[in-house]
Amino acid sequence: METLADVGEFGLIRRIRTLLEERGGRDAGLIVGAGDDAAAMTPRSGYDLLVTCDAMVEGRHFLRDIMSPVQIGRRAMTMNISDIGAMGGFPRWALVSMGLELGAAAEDVLDLYRGFLEELNPLGAVIAGGNITRSGDGAFIDITLIGEVERGRMVRRSGAREGDAILVSGWPGQAAAGLDLLAHARGDGEAPEAFPLLQAYRTPAHRVREGRAIAGTGLANAMIDISDGLLGDLGHICEESRAGAEVQEDALPVSESLRWAARGSGEDPSSLVTRDSDDYELIVTCAPMHVDALRAAVARVSEVPVTRIGWITDAAGRLDLVRADGTRSTFERRGWDHFSDPRARG
Amino acid sequence: METLADVGEFGLIRRIRTLLEERGGRDAGLIVGAGDDAAAMTPRSGYDLLVTCDAMVEGRHFLRDIMSPVQIGRRAMTMNISDIGAMGGFPRWALVSMGLELGAAAEDVLDLYRGFLEELNPLGAVIAGGNITRSGDGAFIDITLIGEVERGRMVRRSGAREGDAILVSGWPGQAAAGLDLLAHARGDGEAPEAFPLLQAYRTPAHRVREGRAIAGTGLANAMIDISDGLLGDLGHICEESRAGAEVQEDALPVSESLRWAARGSGEDPSSLVTRDSDDYELIVTCAPMHVDALRAAVARVSEVPVTRIGWITDAAGRLDLVRADGTRSTFERRGWDHFSDPRARG
Repeated sequence: METLADVGEFGLIRRIRTLLEERGGRDAGLIVGAGDDAAAMTPRSGYDLLVTCDAMVEGRHFLRDIMSPVQIGRRAMTMNISDIGAMGGFPRWALVSMGLELGAAAEDVLDLYRGFLEELNPLGAVIAGGNITRSGDGAFIDITLIGEVERGRMVRRSGAREGDAILVSGWPGQAAAGLDLLAHARGDGEAPEAFPLLQAYRTPAHRVREGRAIAGTGLANAMIDISDGLLGDLGHICEESRAGAEVQEDALPVSESLRWAARGSGEDPSSLVTRDSDDYELIVTCAPMHVDALRAAVARVSEVPVTRIGWITDAAGRLDLVRADGTRSTFERRGWDHFSDPRARG
Repeated sequence: METLADVGEFGLIRRIRTLLEERGGRDAGLIVGAGDDAAAMTPRSGYDLLVTCDAMVEGRHFLRDIMSPVQIGRRAMTMNISDIGAMGGFPRWALVSMGLELGAAAEDVLDLYRGFLEELNPLGAVIAGGNITRSGDGAFIDITLIGEVERGRMVRRSGAREGDAILVSGWPGQAAAGLDLLAHARGDGEAPEAFPLLQAYRTPAHRVREGRAIAGTGLANAMIDISDGLLGDLGHICEESRAGAEVQEDALPVSESLRWAARGSGEDPSSLVTRDSDDYELIVTCAPMHVDALRAAVARVSEVPVTRIGWITDAAGRLDLVRADGTRSTFERRGWDHFSDPRARG
């Protein structure tokens, strides 16, 4: 096995450049890619830029014993694509910065890039540059993704209004349930019900097409992707919009797999849906009269379900989960705090 | 001392946002800064984008016992500003991604941001967003900087032509000499001659104004900043331009401080100028007839000297250092390889 110590930084960069030339796709807007002081590109007129960056740290955001390098690469890129999609935009240019240990296998690093490209290629986006350095203890992958959105079409977190319907795509909570299975390795990961959960964790789907369709209607007031859990990210919308929210427990989308996982762990299915989980699904708010139009717009590009789960209130900062019997739990909004252990959550 | 474990990620982010609101400057093109899925900005029409990212890893690229957090922040931002300047552009929007240990002092993190702003504010550039996560062992700072350059004005590494004059700004090698003084702590760091060397390492200057002036003439064929040493980066120009270079030893700019350091260490002054050193000076090539015009353009914005040190040849990949007595050393071009120890250098 060749390591970075064997091939050197420049040797590794040459292999990455060869991989990108062969499989990295083309972008008419890219003037200078890797191999100069900076990448250079021509932005499209009539569009605004969207820029996001997210870092994954080994041992914290990914574990090499439960995910392959290709899967880690896909997940890292999906996180960033999802952020661009949640603004209504589409990704164009990625910069990849990595810190690697001297003993890292060169082929594993190339596999990370193969993972990046598996996500970027179908969207016509490219890797425009990056940086590789040696890290002390454990690797990190830090991706900056630049996208574009038609001027005036961007959907922010801060636009939710009292009375808005709250919609969510897909099956939130599946990624966390998948991680639970992997972490406990109890053997129930072999069950057919486990597969969608494992997949949701290992190779989550972004909703960039759905986000584009939603932004394209001009009807959404607020949008966010779920990287801190359904309630956590709904809380972000409430905070930025200075609003509150009521969520109907019996309206929450619970997949068959999640119901199976809840039976296994003895937990309440709805708590599995709402807790910390990075699913990269979308939460959207819009005036109730526009719900059908938004759903129809998504249905034209995707088979992902869109579920109405509640409404925006004027009770700023307050998040209520209302049960079928009329009782309610009031949650204090708190995002997943990477520095607080245990994870505090209302 | 409050640590990140005390204030939490969101607590820290709130403090950073307050600092940025108070001291972060304004940018008319920035539509969405921190606090949404992605930052959003309107690029100027008639300009191309320049994007660079560089990571600094604790213990490898910075040491907390020889630099203050403000100095570390300034240095990290200067590295990136320098890359934008070396393409002829100007910086506009920075994204800062950091991995921090749980025990890091919150005030030190804010000091890093104060350092970033000390470099960005005078240029009218702003911090548009970022990401904070917990790292295991040692911190990392990864900055992505987005700049703009007038369409058609960008200066690449790859445009050097046979017969071009090679110019260099300032006093290359001073940063490495400063680091030597700090690393050995022999007490000679107290001498007045040491000050420029220590400053070159701790708070290096970027040459973005000089780079803008050079690009504005339209006369430069190639440009690069010095982050791998004078010969290392001249080698990058040669490689990308498929050319060679001859450098006259007695033309190399040797500062009084560097001459003093050479006396102290018993080394050859010219080897201190040419070796690995990240000085963020510029190397420029142009047709000999344009040397005076380039120098005059720089002199209008800066007092930094511009020294002619040699010429571009057609001997692809070959770099010759020619001494006053006519003898020459031929160097194999090799950049500083972060993964190869000891640092191999021709």
